[in-house]
Amino acid sequence: MSKANQLKVYNTLTRQKEVFEPLSPPHVGMYVCGPTVYGDPHLGHARSAIVFDIVFRYLKHHGYKVRYVRNITDVGHLENDGDMGEDKIAKKARLEQLEPMEIVQIYTDQYHKNMAQLNLLNPSIEPRASGHIIEQIEMIQKLLKKDLAYEVKGSIYFNVVAYDASNNYGKLSGRKIEELMKNTRKLEGQEDKKNPFDFALWKKAQPEHIMKWPSPWSLGFPGWHLECSVMGAKYLGTPFDIHGGGLDLLFPHHECEIAQSQAANDTDPVKYWLHNNMITINSQKMSKSLGNFITLDELFTGSHNALEQAYSPMTVRFFILQAHYRGTLDFSNKALQAAEKGLNKLLNGISTLKKLKSSNSSSSNINKLKESCETAMKDDFNTSILISCLFEGVRIINSVNLGEEKISSEDLDLLKSIFEDYAIKILGFTEKTSSNDNSLVDPLMDLILDIRQEARSKQDYEISDKIREALTKMKIVTKDEQDGTSWNYEE
Amino acid sequence: MSKANQLKVYNTLTRQKEVFEPLSPPHVGMYVCGPTVYGDPHLGHARSAIVFDIVFRYLKHHGYKVRYVRNITDVGHLENDGDMGEDKIAKKARLEQLEPMEIVQIYTDQYHKNMAQLNLLNPSIEPRASGHIIEQIEMIQKLLKKDLAYEVKGSIYFNVVAYDASNNYGKLSGRKIEELMKNTRKLEGQEDKKNPFDFALWKKAQPEHIMKWPSPWSLGFPGWHLECSVMGAKYLGTPFDIHGGGLDLLFPHHECEIAQSQAANDTDPVKYWLHNNMITINSQKMSKSLGNFITLDELFTGSHNALEQAYSPMTVRFFILQAHYRGTLDFSNKALQAAEKGLNKLLNGISTLKKLKSSNSSSSNINKLKESCETAMKDDFNTSILISCLFEGVRIINSVNLGEEKISSEDLDLLKSIFEDYAIKILGFTEKTSSNDNSLVDPLMDLILDIRQEARSKQDYEISDKIREALTKMKIVTKDEQDGTSWNYEE
Repeated sequence: MSKANQLKVYNTLTRQKEVFEPLSPPHVGMYVCGPTVYGDPHLGHARSAIVFDIVFRYLKHHGYKVRYVRNITDVGHLENDGDMGEDKIAKKARLEQLEPMEIVQIYTDQYHKNMAQLNLLNPSIEPRASGHIIEQIEMIQKLLKKDLAYEVKGSIYFNVVAYDASNNYGKLSGRKIEELMKNTRKLEGQEDKKNPFDFALWKKAQPEHIMKWPSPWSLGFPGWHLECSVMGAKYLGTPFDIHGGGLDLLFPHHECEIAQSQAANDTDPVKYWLHNNMITINSQKMSKSLGNFITLDELFTGSHNALEQAYSPMTVRFFILQAHYRGTLDFSNKALQAAEKGLNKLLNGISTLKKLKSSNSSSSNINKLKESCETAMKDDFNTSILISCLFEGVRIINSVNLGEEKISSEDLDLLKSIFEDYAIKILGFTEKTSSNDNSLVDPLMDLILDIRQEARSKQDYEISDKIREALTKMKIVTKDEQDGTSWNYEE
Repeated sequence: MSKANQLKVYNTLTRQKEVFEPLSPPHVGMYVCGPTVYGDPHLGHARSAIVFDIVFRYLKHHGYKVRYVRNITDVGHLENDGDMGEDKIAKKARLEQLEPMEIVQIYTDQYHKNMAQLNLLNPSIEPRASGHIIEQIEMIQKLLKKDLAYEVKGSIYFNVVAYDASNNYGKLSGRKIEELMKNTRKLEGQEDKKNPFDFALWKKAQPEHIMKWPSPWSLGFPGWHLECSVMGAKYLGTPFDIHGGGLDLLFPHHECEIAQSQAANDTDPVKYWLHNNMITINSQKMSKSLGNFITLDELFTGSHNALEQAYSPMTVRFFILQAHYRGTLDFSNKALQAAEKGLNKLLNGISTLKKLKSSNSSSSNINKLKESCETAMKDDFNTSILISCLFEGVRIINSVNLGEEKISSEDLDLLKSIFEDYAIKILGFTEKTSSNDNSLVDPLMDLILDIRQEARSKQDYEISDKIREALTKMKIVTKDEQDGTSWNYEE
């Protein structure tokens, strides 16, 4: 890549787009905050996972050796500091009278199932918080040694004020500690802390708490922010290249990650902080209390009151990628239906492309098309513009197919590689036939179209009408072309 | 269940079939040794996983609340004690210059993919050895306190002779400690142990060793036998009901599990020990050096020199369940091809069953058929006999379909429930249509058969012949029946 044509990414830390220069090329280390596995995956999980799947795919496409770590939070996610240290998972487990790890397993399996449906690549490592208790204890010991953490009644807190004296707490979120001091109310259950915005590194477990481990201070469990700092450093080193996550995690989670990592290792832990924006539902925040909380299973099967129909995983993927990751994205049936149409248009284009015949010359500039695809992705992974470029490609495909435009053999190969690279490999859309996963549909359709042709040639319109009607019901459209009939799914 | 009609399981510990009586019904705790994730899953993995999937399904079918724990060995699996404590995973990781957890992730994902293809239910909990280092250290501390373990140069060994003085080491495998003492040669690298058959609980890591954790004795890693004892007790209690695994794990792994658990907790850890027998390949032991090591991916795609064709996951499942789990099972192309035929016969029977019409009375005793299915499963999960019972069911189905036998409406419902329960729910076979996962094949076939009917009625044999030929190529067979034409996949 020439310097002028380099990938630029928006770094939340510097609030600007920066040229992406990995710390030790060709290696790239990327850490993304994964799910807390105590509930069904929903649209929010899908967006974050798909956005960073694109980053992973795009960097690999350009030859980087990416180690992509996405954690599973199976313990220690505090609801708030006033929650008496009871973590979400253990709470649900006790209600259902189950072993917490049984809950964890159910929702981890569900998450994996949904992510596979969305055609996500598996991360390189998927570490669990509960699998790194020792490493978390070791990091707390470092912080205690540096006097940046303190113990109260068996729990350990990070001392934000002490840290801020020689560091810049709030540099990621832009919050100032003075404002935090003014605006933070004392909450119940917070009496133990020196300052209300100090955060827990280790919490002593209440007797009824199920998930707990021995430590030098108490039988307890780690604070939620700690796991990401520990697992990021363990698997990617200090510092590493990219840390991603939803914008809702920026503060306090990522801010605390920076503080404790900087404090423990004397290094800013991450070079590029990337945040994807949120999904709203009909312009409202998604939340269980508003009843607009739609799980991915509900979305894929249409089993939620707010849904007019089922939307396939690929439709959801298209819907999410149609927007740039840093903009908000509003869910509505109309938007999903438009995405469904858009996806079909794209996939039909790809299937037409395979049958296209070349001429001696081209009437469109395919090189320029490729350039605009690449420019879109280089500009902070702008999948929204990339998709519009691919639609321009579909327009060319259809025009060539209708004989209104022509394409040289060389350009046809280039056009095929554009769709193969950008639509399939980078955007991760799966083609109709492979997603149907059935080799019988194609030969059956061949047979039917063959019979139709024969019936017509004999002027047996009864049979050809019957075929037309039946295929219409199956949402299959046929198109007569010079050398036979082609078929496609309705757009 | 009446006493006389209770489930009997073969307990390796007592070398006899015993009535299955869980420790605290309706709960059942079952622990099965899962994969060491440093290589591709093969037929051996498939057999063990499928066998205990059947146990899981069958117990759940009878209303037991089963907590099924199957571990992932991601660390600490010693090749042998002379291996200087280097564990298999770390070794491979260093060769490939990868982070061990990256290897672990690749093969864990692969294992999950293959197990899903084989239609296994997910276990209730899938704990990892690396996620339970603290618990393993705690168990070692218990054993040290009881003087049944000793430290040498930062490593801890279990003292088999001291344990045997007041316990019966060898009771599972039937080996006597006196014979072990006579027959075990001193191996290099074993000098630290008091006796060559003492086994490692904790190994001090060599400097080049990648996976290691701090402990009171050294920076090191746990011995392989320990994780199963620790995770079994943690998630299922002490003692628990069923411990399963392949026969190759009986000694030393399971023997050591019993010894260290009994020593630490003063309780025999497991009530019923179940072991599945091995798979041979053309009567030879499966091994990498013999070149007959076939991975599941190779089996499913046919991409191994020893394979004449690809075998579907359901064919492999059928092949494995056709034999009783305690017998050896020999892989050959012929045996797999026979399994493929058998599976198709069964699935075609189920699809014919759905269209069957009832009469006023039955010519076969369907109650007796159900009884023999249940008797087969109650006799130590004899899936081999169960499948032959289901074939008797298929014979009845086909006879009724041909009008040679008849079935009452009540019996028809019963017959349907037999296949639903035993073939689908318990044996876990998936029906053709659902495994094809395509709603288009059925309507397309309806259309084709409709056209064929119409063409024939017009004596247009050109079209009906064309259809017949094309379907034959697709391995679809049609059958003309009183009220239309049915179709099925070739057996």
